[in-house]
Amino acid sequence: MAFQTSIPVRFGDEDRAGVVYFPRFLHFFHCALEDFFSFAGHPYREVLEIDRVGWPAVHADVDFLRPLRFGDVFEIDVWVQRVGNKSATFGYRGRIRGEDHDVAKAAITVACVQLDDFRPIPIPEKYREILERHTAAPAS
Amino acid sequence: MAFQTSIPVRFGDEDRAGVVYFPRFLHFFHCALEDFFSFAGHPYREVLEIDRVGWPAVHADVDFLRPLRFGDVFEIDVWVQRVGNKSATFGYRGRIRGEDHDVAKAAITVACVQLDDFRPIPIPEKYREILERHTAAPAS
Amino acid sequence: MAFQTSIPVRFGDEDRAGVVYFPRFLHFFHCALEDFFSFAGHPYREVLEIDRVGWPAVHADVDFLRPLRFGDVFEIDVWVQRVGNKSATFGYRGRIRGEDHDVAKAAITVACVQLDDFRPIPIPEKYREILERHTAAPAS
Amino acid sequence: MAFQTSIPVRFGDEDRAGVVYFPRFLHFFHCALEDFFSFAGHPYREVLEIDRVGWPAVHADVDFLRPLRFGDVFEIDVWVQRVGNKSATFGYRGRIRGEDHDVAKAAITVACVQLDDFRPIPIPEKYREILERHTAAPAS
Repeated sequence: MAFQTSIPVRFGDEDRAGVVYFPRFLHFFHCALEDFFSFAGHPYREVLEIDRVGWPAVHADVDFLRPLRFGDVFEIDVWVQRVGNKSATFGYRGRIRGEDHDVAKAAITVACVQLDDFRPIPIPEKYREILERHTAAPAS
Repeated sequence: MAFQTSIPVRFGDEDRAGVVYFPRFLHFFHCALEDFFSFAGHPYREVLEIDRVGWPAVHADVDFLRPLRFGDVFEIDVWVQRVGNKSATFGYRGRIRGEDHDVAKAAITVACVQLDDFRPIPIPEKYREILERHTAAPAS
Repeated sequence: MAFQTSIPVRFGDEDRAGVVYFPRFLHFFHCALEDFFSFAGHPYREVLEIDRVGWPAVHADVDFLRPLRFGDVFEIDVWVQRVGNKSATFGYRGRIRGEDHDVAKAAITVACVQLDDFRPIPIPEKYREILERHTAAPAS
Repeated sequence: MAFQTSIPVRFGDEDRAGVVYFPRFLHFFHCALEDFFSFAGHPYREVLEIDRVGWPAVHADVDFLRPLRFGDVFEIDVWVQRVGNKSATFGYRGRIRGEDHDVAKAAITVACVQLDDFRPIPIPEKYREILERHTAAPAS
């Protein structure tokens, strides 16, 4: 099942055109990734500090479909599109609370690295299990 | 010929892993777009305020290839990969000053809209000419 | 009574030193101001869009007392220290959820302006009433 | 003599009101601090990575006097208002290139800490010398 989290859109997220500045969407999707790890029992700060494992983005494919505005609640579905040996691809789909249209979608591939030298490592088994449990895309 | 601009990487651009937080790359590429318009004789603020034309991103495809760090100068080549009727795709390639490796690459498609209602419009002729003059990719 | 809101600290809020980058505190305090207006029955987006009234900061006095980190929940008390004719001063006090120490404090003075020309105006009565109802500082 | 640096104001620095979002001023002042250290012969990244010395803000007193906008060049004077044993206070004054009015002013006190444990330390002699050479405020 897809995990869902939500983020309130703030005054400071908007640009002068009165819509969310598009780089902020990648920030929102990273926030959703953090919430996904917490939901799965591994708060991201502990992943970084205790396990010393990081997940830097290596590729992002993003569709910006509709404006998002200050005051909206941005609801983001997170799922896992692909689990590789040393990388994985997360799917994100965001909508405005109370509406049915997709606002933004993304596929973001992250490498699994050991934080001390940023060298890619095979995804540790405990994370692999989590990723493989969340491969179902959200219903459309 | 590809246009090149450069951006100093700041302390505040880095995340706790000691590398630029990946959403900042999209901000850097937007800064490069602003510089491209200035270089072409149309400062972006005037594009927005006088012509009332905006260029919101509708799609981004980004490769994050190597870490970028505080103190680096990020050199970005900008060119035009495609000119459509109501949209265009910009290519971006970023390297660290003094180095030969690509750090990040992106293809970002922008719609041409009138700012008052965000409705897509055919790219005005004066912008079309500029875009068509800068379609050559940078030498690799 | 002081109004309290809370903000989850994100990965992207930290700098390379592993603590929240200090300009983010002003962003957090502005988020708390937005929540204060919502709590008082006037969502800030409506204040801006319907009433066309803005509250730009004209002065900020901020103490950064302790580090704030990714994963912390930042609890912010908001109250009104002073209500003038065309300006008001908000007090902010932030702590980490579950802890007793102040992390940051601020007094931020905002002007009341009409958004169309940024000209200061006397605080409209309906806002003055709200401000005057929330002048009590939080218990220490 | 006061050190001066300049920062181009970007599209992404503005908020929906069409002026720089006020927390960005603290970011701009930090950028100016980075440039001050470079100018003084100690690039800030080396201060952090080689000397392992950090300068976190402990207090900020900021006046936001006039709007700053995308397309402006923000010229910032930096000087040292006070050199203490384990802390120092920097003065900042920002104007728009080509104009005579102060846009923002700040006094920001930083502690001198060893980065490994954030413990305040007496300002090392080589930095003290630099700070004491730049105590003159800019001409008004």
